[in-house]
Amino acid sequence: MKRRSLLAGAVPGALAVSAPGTALADDDGGFRVREVGGFHVGGEAVTLSGVPTRDAYVAEGQTPFRVDPNGDFQSGQIYVNYVRLARPRSPLPVLMWHGGGLTGACFETTPDRRQGWQQRFLSAGRDVYLTDALGAGRASWGRYPEASKAEPLFRTKKELWELFRIGPPGSYATDPRKRRPYADTQFPVAAFDEFVKQVVPRFRTYDRSTQAGYDALVARVGPSTVLTHSAGGPFGFAATIAAPGRVRAHVAIEPSGAPDPATVDFSRVRRVPHLIVWGDHLDADPSWGQLYDSTRRFHDALRAAGGHSTWIDLRDHGHRGNSHMIMMDRDSHRVAGMIDSWLKEHVR
Amino acid sequence: MKRRSLLAGAVPGALAVSAPGTALADDDGGFRVREVGGFHVGGEAVTLSGVPTRDAYVAEGQTPFRVDPNGDFQSGQIYVNYVRLARPRSPLPVLMWHGGGLTGACFETTPDRRQGWQQRFLSAGRDVYLTDALGAGRASWGRYPEASKAEPLFRTKKELWELFRIGPPGSYATDPRKRRPYADTQFPVAAFDEFVKQVVPRFRTYDRSTQAGYDALVARVGPSTVLTHSAGGPFGFAATIAAPGRVRAHVAIEPSGAPDPATVDFSRVRRVPHLIVWGDHLDADPSWGQLYDSTRRFHDALRAAGGHSTWIDLRDHGHRGNSHMIMMDRDSHRVAGMIDSWLKEHVR
Repeated sequence: MKRRSLLAGAVPGALAVSAPGTALADDDGGFRVREVGGFHVGGEAVTLSGVPTRDAYVAEGQTPFRVDPNGDFQSGQIYVNYVRLARPRSPLPVLMWHGGGLTGACFETTPDRRQGWQQRFLSAGRDVYLTDALGAGRASWGRYPEASKAEPLFRTKKELWELFRIGPPGSYATDPRKRRPYADTQFPVAAFDEFVKQVVPRFRTYDRSTQAGYDALVARVGPSTVLTHSAGGPFGFAATIAAPGRVRAHVAIEPSGAPDPATVDFSRVRRVPHLIVWGDHLDADPSWGQLYDSTRRFHDALRAAGGHSTWIDLRDHGHRGNSHMIMMDRDSHRVAGMIDSWLKEHVR
Repeated sequence: MKRRSLLAGAVPGALAVSAPGTALADDDGGFRVREVGGFHVGGEAVTLSGVPTRDAYVAEGQTPFRVDPNGDFQSGQIYVNYVRLARPRSPLPVLMWHGGGLTGACFETTPDRRQGWQQRFLSAGRDVYLTDALGAGRASWGRYPEASKAEPLFRTKKELWELFRIGPPGSYATDPRKRRPYADTQFPVAAFDEFVKQVVPRFRTYDRSTQAGYDALVARVGPSTVLTHSAGGPFGFAATIAAPGRVRAHVAIEPSGAPDPATVDFSRVRRVPHLIVWGDHLDADPSWGQLYDSTRRFHDALRAAGGHSTWIDLRDHGHRGNSHMIMMDRDSHRVAGMIDSWLKEHVR
């Protein structure tokens, strides 16, 4: 992985994203809402039959009982929560797609109780749709192990602390007072255990149904901006390639890689401007370098095909110490302002 | 179980709840919001150590891998989603607590895309807090089986169809065209499979942490109205008994029973008005009769102690065919109007 400056991949005007005064207001007077609600999209009917009954796992002293796994279920759907403004200033809602082991809650209030990106983009006049996918949160998950197949994976606090680059390898401790985060970290470290409360188990078997769900969501909502984080990124790239007339922009926050350009027909997707944002301390784990480089190849190919793609390494713009959870970092409102300004300049 | 009319348990003025024109407006002009967001409350740090590693369940053809269950986790928290109005007409937010196998999504848009109770109570000028609890949805759940202990339970469509009283026993079929609901059902039957998408697995091991979480939520939010459904009911009764100064009213929709009056000191809780609402076809399964009777004993004891409790059997008020999912039934807006009118009359 080599770091590139913003200018290396920038489209004209991209520097405006870090101009002073473009951050969304810290304190706003609220906004008029037409409707809040939620729905599910995608998924499929699953019928299990002929599966032997089995003894349930019960704790010592509990009454044993039999589990009959057979019957009809729904599985693989995604959950969508929306807030639609009475008078949006943009015709394009922002669909925010979370990463692995998380839910749409990551875009709500930050763990240290500051306004989240959901509130900030609403305040900026954009409808916001949050989702739960990948068998997480309100998306629900299929009967395990019969329908979900591969088992749920639980990340420890240590893994989250290191993988999300809050502190270097070996700096996590059970006792919060003994943890040693990066000296310049932007993550609200005192709220780390509060953040962990929103972490959910991951399944590795929902990728196909999740892509189908997101494609169906884009079809249902119509023209929109897709903002993805981490493992949500590949779904965003694929949804954009599948429906470049509906996805009018893709903002990818530290995506878990991008499609191999050799597999992509850029003739249609080049119409869709992309913004790709990276935080700091990416050298901590070699996996980040691979995702960074994979995404960079897509970015370069998109630009070579005549498309717009803006690449932002936040540390080149006065933002040091950003973690993987940029939407929760202490400078999250300034990054939201960058994104909002970029959207104003490059979309429509 | 014997049916009682509204008048048998009504407080003066209770008949107003079914007066014409009290339903919330079908089409509103929206509402001004100060803030939307979410947070987690309650839960505890869990450290697993010395647990043997094990082979993960993987589907045929997948690469086997080892699971190390040891490490630090958070478990047992509840998730809260809130919409706070810029100018609420009531000082008391409504905290809506879902039932077993469901999440706060049950109070959002109905499965057949009508406005849910979240939107309706916001339109009526009340802040609304939705929760996910019991290891469901965005509450997350602990590493299974080491931390969650008892295993997740998955309801089949047939069980949901019968238990939630959409059709009589034996009337469910995999093919939607072959299902035979009650002739007078209020449930939007064509959207049944859509409803099932929001059903989540249940754990039987989160009751204690859920109660602690709800008590902590009430302490954090302050004076409020608690509206519970089904398995959320017992948490609502207990939270009211624990903090009758904070819970200013409890609206229980088909609660899964109530505390034994012999265990309750009514001297303080009698200040808190209660509204208890039941749907139709309660004879379908004997478990409903037990819950109905248990709740009735609490209602009678509360009134005998000088408290206010209103008991509504919807079929006595021109509402035939209500299912267990009253907030989704086709007449859900009229029931919301009843509740809103009751709150206006009996609270503050």
